[in-house]
Amino acid sequence: MSDTGSPRPVALIVLAAGQGTRMNSDLPKPLHKLGGVPLIAHALAAGAALEPSRVVVVTGHGAEEVEAAVADLAPFATCVRQEVQQGTGHAVLQAAPALEGFEGDAIVLYADTPFVSADTLEAMRAARAAHDIVVLGFEAADPGRYGRLIREGDRLLRIVEAKDATPEELAVTTCNSGLMAADAATLLRLLGQVGNANAAGEYYLTDVPALAIAEGLSATAILCPEAETLGINSRAELAAAERAFQAAKRAEMVETGVAMAAPETVIFALDTFVGRDAEVEPYVVFGPGVTVESGARIRAFSHLEACHVGAGAIVGPYTRLRPGAEIGNRAHVGNFCEVKESLIGEGAKVNHLSYIGDAEIGEGTNIGAATVTCNYDGVMKHRTVVGRNAFIGSDTMLVAPVTVGDRAMTASGSVITQDVPAGALALGRAKQVNKLGLAEKLMDRLRAIKASRKG
Amino acid sequence: MSDTGSPRPVALIVLAAGQGTRMNSDLPKPLHKLGGVPLIAHALAAGAALEPSRVVVVTGHGAEEVEAAVADLAPFATCVRQEVQQGTGHAVLQAAPALEGFEGDAIVLYADTPFVSADTLEAMRAARAAHDIVVLGFEAADPGRYGRLIREGDRLLRIVEAKDATPEELAVTTCNSGLMAADAATLLRLLGQVGNANAAGEYYLTDVPALAIAEGLSATAILCPEAETLGINSRAELAAAERAFQAAKRAEMVETGVAMAAPETVIFALDTFVGRDAEVEPYVVFGPGVTVESGARIRAFSHLEACHVGAGAIVGPYTRLRPGAEIGNRAHVGNFCEVKESLIGEGAKVNHLSYIGDAEIGEGTNIGAATVTCNYDGVMKHRTVVGRNAFIGSDTMLVAPVTVGDRAMTASGSVITQDVPAGALALGRAKQVNKLGLAEKLMDRLRAIKASRKG
Amino acid sequence: MSDTGSPRPVALIVLAAGQGTRMNSDLPKPLHKLGGVPLIAHALAAGAALEPSRVVVVTGHGAEEVEAAVADLAPFATCVRQEVQQGTGHAVLQAAPALEGFEGDAIVLYADTPFVSADTLEAMRAARAAHDIVVLGFEAADPGRYGRLIREGDRLLRIVEAKDATPEELAVTTCNSGLMAADAATLLRLLGQVGNANAAGEYYLTDVPALAIAEGLSATAILCPEAETLGINSRAELAAAERAFQAAKRAEMVETGVAMAAPETVIFALDTFVGRDAEVEPYVVFGPGVTVESGARIRAFSHLEACHVGAGAIVGPYTRLRPGAEIGNRAHVGNFCEVKESLIGEGAKVNHLSYIGDAEIGEGTNIGAATVTCNYDGVMKHRTVVGRNAFIGSDTMLVAPVTVGDRAMTASGSVITQDVPAGALALGRAKQVNKLGLAEKLMDRLRAIKASRKG
Repeated sequence: MSDTGSPRPVALIVLAAGQGTRMNSDLPKPLHKLGGVPLIAHALAAGAALEPSRVVVVTGHGAEEVEAAVADLAPFATCVRQEVQQGTGHAVLQAAPALEGFEGDAIVLYADTPFVSADTLEAMRAARAAHDIVVLGFEAADPGRYGRLIREGDRLLRIVEAKDATPEELAVTTCNSGLMAADAATLLRLLGQVGNANAAGEYYLTDVPALAIAEGLSATAILCPEAETLGINSRAELAAAERAFQAAKRAEMVETGVAMAAPETVIFALDTFVGRDAEVEPYVVFGPGVTVESGARIRAFSHLEACHVGAGAIVGPYTRLRPGAEIGNRAHVGNFCEVKESLIGEGAKVNHLSYIGDAEIGEGTNIGAATVTCNYDGVMKHRTVVGRNAFIGSDTMLVAPVTVGDRAMTASGSVITQDVPAGALALGRAKQVNKLGLAEKLMDRLRAIKASRKG
Repeated sequence: MSDTGSPRPVALIVLAAGQGTRMNSDLPKPLHKLGGVPLIAHALAAGAALEPSRVVVVTGHGAEEVEAAVADLAPFATCVRQEVQQGTGHAVLQAAPALEGFEGDAIVLYADTPFVSADTLEAMRAARAAHDIVVLGFEAADPGRYGRLIREGDRLLRIVEAKDATPEELAVTTCNSGLMAADAATLLRLLGQVGNANAAGEYYLTDVPALAIAEGLSATAILCPEAETLGINSRAELAAAERAFQAAKRAEMVETGVAMAAPETVIFALDTFVGRDAEVEPYVVFGPGVTVESGARIRAFSHLEACHVGAGAIVGPYTRLRPGAEIGNRAHVGNFCEVKESLIGEGAKVNHLSYIGDAEIGEGTNIGAATVTCNYDGVMKHRTVVGRNAFIGSDTMLVAPVTVGDRAMTASGSVITQDVPAGALALGRAKQVNKLGLAEKLMDRLRAIKASRKG
Repeated sequence: MSDTGSPRPVALIVLAAGQGTRMNSDLPKPLHKLGGVPLIAHALAAGAALEPSRVVVVTGHGAEEVEAAVADLAPFATCVRQEVQQGTGHAVLQAAPALEGFEGDAIVLYADTPFVSADTLEAMRAARAAHDIVVLGFEAADPGRYGRLIREGDRLLRIVEAKDATPEELAVTTCNSGLMAADAATLLRLLGQVGNANAAGEYYLTDVPALAIAEGLSATAILCPEAETLGINSRAELAAAERAFQAAKRAEMVETGVAMAAPETVIFALDTFVGRDAEVEPYVVFGPGVTVESGARIRAFSHLEACHVGAGAIVGPYTRLRPGAEIGNRAHVGNFCEVKESLIGEGAKVNHLSYIGDAEIGEGTNIGAATVTCNYDGVMKHRTVVGRNAFIGSDTMLVAPVTVGDRAMTASGSVITQDVPAGALALGRAKQVNKLGLAEKLMDRLRAIKASRKG
């Protein structure tokens, strides 16, 4: 066991092949969402803190869907398939080809164990300095069906399944989480010795410590809070996990100085960032990828995904920010407005009933109510560019591709199909005509028709 | 007592005459809502599982309103009025004329006891095979003011009011729910013998078992969980009942495979159906009469009433589906859109800020942002029909009655008052004119006016 | 000690100078919001019930911001600054100049102790009839760090800080809330005797009772529930206080006869008024200044601030009422509608996707979908007036200043820039033209362009 200053390279092996029958779903279990992202993203995010040299995801059930998600979440990861599910030991062994030539430690994680913290993984890695095999354990409130960690001082002697345990062993409350760290080559070599002479005919990763000790290697257990080891096996457990995730995230936000009158009504994603002294009103939903700067205010009933809100900006109530919305400092986006793939310049205002998509709105520009960037022609999407300090009248249709210059105006009700030069006023509407007495005549006629139909 | 294979006919007698003073409301108690429907609808729904031959609702306080609601909820039911409130026994007796000629069992239910399950009613019916009178009881956590069921083996000896009970009887924790089953004719006959020599001068249904036993008939008690017998007497109890209803419905949805990140934020109605692997995001409200097929996704902040969402469709965020909205498979209805009495065809899209009412939108058609079906002329409603694979430009006003053909287009900003043939492009907008420099001049002038007003 | 029939004049001294470091915010603590209003507004509101002759607010940290807020909340109050924070005694002394010439009782309150009730303050005032100094105490569930009230009968002997207390004194669970009432002149005179010979070098208000007793004056303690004395020191405590506030306000609403299916989802402000038999659906947010009359219905996802909803009116779902919205009896404001500084007449309807700002809509008038009052010309706001029983067609732009007469109509899609006489029909739209076959040609061409770009 070397005791060098710089840590050894690490490879993550993430087991994501299980069927998750109890989820009662066609969606593979690793793809069910927690904190707005797939379950597997949580283990990948915790593991990423170790700056792993390799990440291997073992897929099986729903492999294609899981692999597509992994390609999105962790493009550097390698997916390997476990064609037949023959136990956790067998699953880890599938990583062997992807670890070809790798020298360092392997840490085995689980796609359905989302709460393991980066600190805990770091502790497992550190413990490898003194031991060949590091198992992650926890003190179980109700040890029941969990495997027991039989220890002597800091040495792990063996893992005993509950069903095979003596009464004395059953009294042990230190249990096995399933996570393990070991030199990668050693781990794979020992897994080659694991047998499947058990009722299920499976190869168990839990047999590794005993095999290691039999060879004269040493094993230890690192303990973490039980909450970190929570596994997800049903939709009810997933909902409970979501509640736990949200409670923790909300407390963290309150702690860091976010103003929230009703934090229990705000839904966060794994990576939501909100700056100090920003305000988040009740009933706000954050999808993944949102950053909100200090002093911004996200008003009630807003829905944000993959967007950025600048300092001092006001968003909502009832604003939908879709991916690619970039709201400038002190800009306002108001009720019943939707912004997608667009830049709203500093201090600009989009206050009422508007759709801004694939657009760039200049600083200080005012977008009138019920304005639409007509970005789709039925086949392709096009861009709209509006300059600085422009004034777009209410109910203006900006038919993209189109550009409106700085300080230009559009008359309300106009359909803008050609570029508007800076400082120009664009009009596109019919002249008003008042037909005296006609409204009363029309209504009389309609009422007569209605009456005759009933008659 | 016959012991035939096929069950005897059943008549339900639902007591709905009470004043509900503690509700602090002008609305009759049976009409206060639970799970989106009137309280009385719950008892009627549970009873309907017995396929009753007759349903008699005894009304009194607010009789006209209650009778109108019953006519809606259970058109086959007969309402009888208890003109003066003289106790539960007197109330049941009012059902006599409506049971003229009926041979079978009567089950007495209460409009304000909404959680009695169909299984429990079925058990009461089954128990009639061996006993003349069947009383529904429960083990009370805190028996306090409840009447006690004094039993010997499976025989009920009598019901003792708490205030009349001996210390020994008070120690009994098996209590009376008030529900009772008996041969209809027997029940009415025994009720004729009930007296009102008590402090309130009322006729009590609870006197029936003792009268039956005195005649040599037999009585028994069936027990159900206390939660099923919960009665509603105040708005606070109603709110607690709603929480219980929602908790049960949410758990049932999770169990059957509905994906919900925050089930505790979803409001269901009594009859909401959501298919397996459909997703319901946070903050969704279901009114009565909604069905959502498998694989559909109801996004955050949506509000659905009496509508149907097809498989794989996406609704929301911020979509309002009103009665008669029929969303086809894989169709999308998006933010700030309202659909009412309309069919949205398979794969069609209504994505932004639109109102679709009294319309039919063909398969694959795209409805642009801020489109309105102008269905109301001030007196009557008219229909809009849009064909397949059409493209309705943003801010199109479809002035009904009007038809747009397959593969037709409308230019954005058009007001469509005449039919558009298949494949045609309809335009109705003024030509754009750019007046150079005019915007700047206008703004200068407005600023001067404002300054002069302040000066 | 006089024992007159009419109460002595009262001056409130509200301490609002503290820094609130644990709030982790640049916003002064008294301005953090609880129940939709600044923390300090709660103490001011409770104190206002005593009809005080003078209100003195002692500011310090963030004095300018706090003073601006006080000027809004309690225009009659005087703000005095505590330039250096030297303890509560020193803070109260700063009120001396503002109490020049005042004869009566002073009551010391705290900006960060929002739950003290008017009844409790009244009890303190009443207790002054028999004692010179009245301290507000409470029975602490966990006395820990609180100062102990050492009493004999109804006499308060002294206040002992926890750190200076004997074991016997520590066993006392009656604790000091910090609130105090005394003759104003006496209080200020005694405060002049308070020294700062303590670890912090501060002048403590808590030294006053002992000094008074040493002079032969009498002191007593009035007790209130511990919940009333809750102080806010961190955002987590503020969030807990908000939960407590909302729970109490919701229970009060249920009690007074408001129909709410899910009261736990409704956010109230300190001064929200909702009439009996009005209904508030789930997910409604009330900002300050809202009154809702009996029989009105506020539907789900609505957001109301500083507005009034008349009897029998229906608002929402998804309605935003901004300050100055006045919704007439039986009027309807519907989904995705925003109303600001406008009067919606009796029975009028604004049902879909509209913005009504700075307007007056007459009785019985129908506003079509996607209507906008174009109230802002880029520099100034202007008013729109629509008469009675008018019919505004969908997508009408009402370019203010403009007036539409009684029974007038506007054609859908019209831009109305000139007044419309009563009974007239105003049209402002281009004629529709159908170009046969052109839609199909256009789509073919677009698809070809798209294909060529990919090629």
